[in-house]
Amino acid sequence: MIIDIHGHYTTAPPALEAWRMRQIAAFDAGAPAPLASELQISDDELRDSIASNQLGKMRERGIDLTVFSPRASFMAHHIGDFATSAAWAALNNALCHRVSQLFPDHFIGAAMLPQSPGVDPASCIPELERCVKEYGFVAINLNPDPSGGHWTSPPLTDRHWYPIYEKMVEYDIPAMIHVSTSCNACFHTTGAHYINADTTAFMQLLSGDLFRDFPTLKFVIPHGGGAAPYHWGRYRGLAQEMKKPLLQDHLLNNVFFDTCVYHQPGIDLLTRVIPVDNVLFASEMIGAVRGIDPETGHHYDDTRRYIDAAHLTPEQRHQIYEGNARRVYPRLDAALSSRGLT
Amino acid sequence: MIIDIHGHYTTAPPALEAWRMRQIAAFDAGAPAPLASELQISDDELRDSIASNQLGKMRERGIDLTVFSPRASFMAHHIGDFATSAAWAALNNALCHRVSQLFPDHFIGAAMLPQSPGVDPASCIPELERCVKEYGFVAINLNPDPSGGHWTSPPLTDRHWYPIYEKMVEYDIPAMIHVSTSCNACFHTTGAHYINADTTAFMQLLSGDLFRDFPTLKFVIPHGGGAAPYHWGRYRGLAQEMKKPLLQDHLLNNVFFDTCVYHQPGIDLLTRVIPVDNVLFASEMIGAVRGIDPETGHHYDDTRRYIDAAHLTPEQRHQIYEGNARRVYPRLDAALSSRGLT
Repeated sequence: MIIDIHGHYTTAPPALEAWRMRQIAAFDAGAPAPLASELQISDDELRDSIASNQLGKMRERGIDLTVFSPRASFMAHHIGDFATSAAWAALNNALCHRVSQLFPDHFIGAAMLPQSPGVDPASCIPELERCVKEYGFVAINLNPDPSGGHWTSPPLTDRHWYPIYEKMVEYDIPAMIHVSTSCNACFHTTGAHYINADTTAFMQLLSGDLFRDFPTLKFVIPHGGGAAPYHWGRYRGLAQEMKKPLLQDHLLNNVFFDTCVYHQPGIDLLTRVIPVDNVLFASEMIGAVRGIDPETGHHYDDTRRYIDAAHLTPEQRHQIYEGNARRVYPRLDAALSSRGLT
Repeated sequence: MIIDIHGHYTTAPPALEAWRMRQIAAFDAGAPAPLASELQISDDELRDSIASNQLGKMRERGIDLTVFSPRASFMAHHIGDFATSAAWAALNNALCHRVSQLFPDHFIGAAMLPQSPGVDPASCIPELERCVKEYGFVAINLNPDPSGGHWTSPPLTDRHWYPIYEKMVEYDIPAMIHVSTSCNACFHTTGAHYINADTTAFMQLLSGDLFRDFPTLKFVIPHGGGAAPYHWGRYRGLAQEMKKPLLQDHLLNNVFFDTCVYHQPGIDLLTRVIPVDNVLFASEMIGAVRGIDPETGHHYDDTRRYIDAAHLTPEQRHQIYEGNARRVYPRLDAALSSRGLT
């Protein structure tokens, strides 16, 4: 089967965004926030929003299952305070859960966390627990910069983040390191902030020794690892100057890259440079880049075509499409196994 | 000939750093700054610092000429105020000028600017003019983030920067977009901040229409263009969504990438994806990555080996090694031509 580990609910019914606008307006005005119950979206509306969009494209492209999380750019953890993020995360996670119940063969959830700048990440644990225990989610998205482009939180290797890591280890769930909208005019959200965050997170992990403290912790760095694979020689050299072990030993038991790289040469580099065990299929469809590439006649984000065309053996392709995802996301594997999919 | 367009004076005599430490201490204490004349470095000291380091490696690697600028990580524009940066830039540019006079066949200068966060970039023009008119420098390094990792300046497409661009056009000099030390704990200087800045600058230029106002303005994005070539499909797709022209037409008459990518697969991607007219040879030697790659037995930053091994015709290699540099740096071409090197 083909598992896409990186899909966001970017086509949610417009009532969701309308609720968010009311929430932000209320926060700005110091007025009471809208109630969660004021957001009413029917199962039919959810079905429609998925069937004609995400699921339609999955079927066209032969993708069986997507690890599905709330829209990344809408997390906007920098808006409001913890209560704002808590209400917003709860609504979004609940919607992804409902989608996974409506289409259980095709979607399984990953949680957005109610992060807020300057707030202890331990505050995210109740939502994380609900998503794992009640919703059966198999991963979380962790925003290394809840300030939205001002980078005011400590690096990911800091003990600041340990409460989250302890829960990840306890539940055996990986985190995708994924920022949200940039509110810094220097950083275009999907063209700079996302890619920079991937690169930044990778370098934070390289500089530290986090996996000594958490040997089973697993991170997925999206968007093909930002700049890291392209500059792999630089990173090998920097690790060497810092007297770190080889990257293979220092990071690659714990750090994985997705395939959200939207052209053949990029995927060719990724699969040439990064061990196949560390590459997980993903498209981030329907996401930042929705057009058709005039050079190929296919959608830029139809990453399956690039993987199919890359110099890989059938066994390697199977690892990228399914095997690695089931290893890195043990709860996904358990869910599939419980359905007889081994 | 082989021209390295990206070398910094990283091996300056220790008296330079000692002077800087005194300057910073004085600023912090509110005491008078040390005088420029208190820095005394003899020609012999300069010769020694170059002959056994930068020039030795250039000879080993067959590099004829380096476009030589002050050490990037030492620019540290975030320290002190404009007067601090002005004095520091003047000292550093003067040293690079002296090196270029001591070794005129091997070094030609590029200027650091006395940028300071929140200060009008027009304040940099007297130093820029001195460097071009008196020192014969052929380029500048422009820091898009003088705050050192807090990104408090407007994007490069903002009119804020136009005074610099007007002078660049007047003198026909390109700018390398190059940040300095990060004082944000999230960003490792050479492993994250440098690469992020390259990606950020590229996306700023993609999002805007700066070259309508300045059709002859030229920027070099160092470190192989950050993440841009690896994610070229993403950037083509984002430009398409923004209704911009094809990148070839929108940016590639004005934006160039150097070859500071420290492994063969990275250079192979760069030369496969980016038109050869837009790739300029560089190593940033002696810089961030000084070790020997155990996978090859050669220095990571010996980028000539990667270019020599890339799938390029002799004509294309000549463009990357010399032709493009002479086209993008017209004052370099004029200097070489005046010496009979055509």
